[in-house]
Amino acid sequence: MRHYDLVILGTGSGNMLLNDELAHLRVAIVEPDRFGGTCLNRGCIPSKMFVVTADAAEGVRAAARLGVNASVEHVDWKAIRDRVFHRIDPLHDSALNYRRENGVDVYTEAGRFIAPGVLQVGTERISADTFIVAVGSRPVVPDIPGLDTVPFHTSDTIMRIDDLPASMAVIGGGFIAAEFSHVFGAFGTDITIMQRGPRLLMAEDEQVSARFTELASHRHRVLVEAAVTSVERSADGIAVTVTCPGGDHVVRAATLLVCVGRRPNTDRLDAAAGGLELDEHGHIVTDSAYRTSVPGVWALGDVANHFQLKHMANAEARLVRHNVLHPKDVRTLANRVAPHAVFTNPQIASVGLTEQEARRRGIEYLVSTRDYAETAYGWALEDTTSFVKVLADPLDRTILGAHIIGPQAATLIQPLIQAMTLGLTVDQVARDVLYIHPALTEVVEQALLAL
Amino acid sequence: MRHYDLVILGTGSGNMLLNDELAHLRVAIVEPDRFGGTCLNRGCIPSKMFVVTADAAEGVRAAARLGVNASVEHVDWKAIRDRVFHRIDPLHDSALNYRRENGVDVYTEAGRFIAPGVLQVGTERISADTFIVAVGSRPVVPDIPGLDTVPFHTSDTIMRIDDLPASMAVIGGGFIAAEFSHVFGAFGTDITIMQRGPRLLMAEDEQVSARFTELASHRHRVLVEAAVTSVERSADGIAVTVTCPGGDHVVRAATLLVCVGRRPNTDRLDAAAGGLELDEHGHIVTDSAYRTSVPGVWALGDVANHFQLKHMANAEARLVRHNVLHPKDVRTLANRVAPHAVFTNPQIASVGLTEQEARRRGIEYLVSTRDYAETAYGWALEDTTSFVKVLADPLDRTILGAHIIGPQAATLIQPLIQAMTLGLTVDQVARDVLYIHPALTEVVEQALLAL
Repeated sequence: MRHYDLVILGTGSGNMLLNDELAHLRVAIVEPDRFGGTCLNRGCIPSKMFVVTADAAEGVRAAARLGVNASVEHVDWKAIRDRVFHRIDPLHDSALNYRRENGVDVYTEAGRFIAPGVLQVGTERISADTFIVAVGSRPVVPDIPGLDTVPFHTSDTIMRIDDLPASMAVIGGGFIAAEFSHVFGAFGTDITIMQRGPRLLMAEDEQVSARFTELASHRHRVLVEAAVTSVERSADGIAVTVTCPGGDHVVRAATLLVCVGRRPNTDRLDAAAGGLELDEHGHIVTDSAYRTSVPGVWALGDVANHFQLKHMANAEARLVRHNVLHPKDVRTLANRVAPHAVFTNPQIASVGLTEQEARRRGIEYLVSTRDYAETAYGWALEDTTSFVKVLADPLDRTILGAHIIGPQAATLIQPLIQAMTLGLTVDQVARDVLYIHPALTEVVEQALLAL
Repeated sequence: MRHYDLVILGTGSGNMLLNDELAHLRVAIVEPDRFGGTCLNRGCIPSKMFVVTADAAEGVRAAARLGVNASVEHVDWKAIRDRVFHRIDPLHDSALNYRRENGVDVYTEAGRFIAPGVLQVGTERISADTFIVAVGSRPVVPDIPGLDTVPFHTSDTIMRIDDLPASMAVIGGGFIAAEFSHVFGAFGTDITIMQRGPRLLMAEDEQVSARFTELASHRHRVLVEAAVTSVERSADGIAVTVTCPGGDHVVRAATLLVCVGRRPNTDRLDAAAGGLELDEHGHIVTDSAYRTSVPGVWALGDVANHFQLKHMANAEARLVRHNVLHPKDVRTLANRVAPHAVFTNPQIASVGLTEQEARRRGIEYLVSTRDYAETAYGWALEDTTSFVKVLADPLDRTILGAHIIGPQAATLIQPLIQAMTLGLTVDQVARDVLYIHPALTEVVEQALLAL
């Protein structure tokens, strides 16, 4: 049985963890799939390449409102898909070779714990002083009658299809459903979204979620409070039966996309055999320093928590690297300010408390909402639907949360993330700092000044 | 002679200065032109409405690089112009009426000092305990042989023309020249820029200026080190003779736009009769609290300094209001962090020291430059020309300057403005704060981390 100083399972954030500081260790990586994990191969990065392209197509259609008459002549799906994956796919080989050339053993079969500290990889067994488990998550396949009898896609496969479908039925109403509905809708596919809850993007602030649902309904057929009861093949695709408050519907579409959540890959790992404690969702339980229940075993990323955010996993990877190297100076993720964005059209970005969460938890707050339309750049955009919402602590006047729906939301939120993380007050950020006139940032300034 | 507690000359930032805190004063406003000043009527606001429209047109043309084939069928200039000014023009009457209904005397003739503290307005004379001079600036008309014999435009008039010209000769290479070249170029006008200096946007960081000049040269005919020697009428417009290092050129165009700078309106004010000291550029000299050489007379905005930035004038107006109301607690503009943006395509934003200025002043600095192309969102944009540059103090590690050229630059720079103003270190902003993956903000994070 080969023994290592360090074995890393998973090459998403796990691969980024490995740097020169660990060069003195005998290291193995276990990756049965592709280097780069979900983010690079099936997640954030390719999806954003499609989203930006979809934004360009929607931008063409929206130009007329400004007085520029333009039209989309043709969306070259294959060229777009190949542009994306011809850029991404070669990165696997180069990353794998780079590691091997630098003395890291790379196992390309699945790893499975057979005892605490012992991993079965293909026909080999390996052990290590330190394991870092970062095997990620995968799409949930829900238990819908008939789903196993029809062809369907998840986020794992939908970006690599050969032809743009004429129509798509989307089961789910979270961020993945919202982003792909935007992408394929912009490219000309007729979209029907079936969402169990009363609104799309239920995790967002209620005002953002409501506004997004309204705007998505202008672009797509959106069924809310829709329970999918069965799926079957139809003459030209699939037929989904849904029960809505108004009665049953049958949604027919050429393609079916299922986006009802993600589950940690702990089942494939045999975490139980490894002695790793799991929570009720199947995540590996860690403390705030990312130690698992087994000494010497660390876990991070989607396998260990609900964030499902690459920037969080990156921060965790930096932390775990430090902790592995400095066992006497173990750090925790001090400030769990976890911002996120949804790259739909309009874009959405959020950090901290939502208003409904503040209410539910009985937290006192001040709130201010400003429309883009109240600023000069919002005028220039002829924007009528975008806004910035900020929640602040009425006592110490720090920022509790911020929520933006509209163009550049993921960029616009950064000063608010910075303020929240560093404990700056609304007054410092609103009054001491200048905002370029007439930049879009003035809407943030206005929202803060109103507090 | 009517006497007031307060007379405000100019209704750009001057009008914004007037709020409830001044309601107890007997106030007059002197505005021979339109309420709103340059920014609203002939500057930032309408120009950005044209720029965003031009961005939309360029966006249509650029979509093909992503796989979306689209074309601009028609740019409806009159519809664009009317959309802009039908929104802006009614604001004059409403602002004027609002002031009169709230007990402010509004004089709509030009005001001219005839003695310190005494103003001639039309046939009337008025005096006041306090004057706030905010009469702004106007385009310089340079002394070019023949210019007085041909029709030409400045930024004051070019946005209101009736028809899109087939071609335009632009004298000047600063931000106004750059923005209007983008606007009219995007709408189909053939542009020739004649710039005296070796690059466009010479006030920007040298790397930004060089990159912009290169990119502008792909879209327009750009003549640098070009001295305009004469202008004359030609058969179908105007002919401009320019001397370049390579010899003389004659640039023929349907329309001539002159953008060689702005001058303060102190000549129209008879500042000398009012006892106001002027600097060599004709600006009213003030101290850092915005007091002029005459007790009781304050000056702010373009008439008092070189910023020519509405957000600076707004900050000055807030300061002067405070100082007028609290003569025993006079404040100064503590932190003259003066950010600005140029709304060209690509967009440019900047704050603090440029590298050439740091070198010239012998200031020690660290510098880091990151291309958008090194981040996931930059990949998605298929961007190859945009970058973020940050200069930092090697000792205390605060930010000395930041310069961005690329999409969303004016939004992207805000966390850096915030950090610089509040004295945050590179390390705090780079390491303690999270950046959403894969948002465009990661390029700022990367530039900071490299320091």
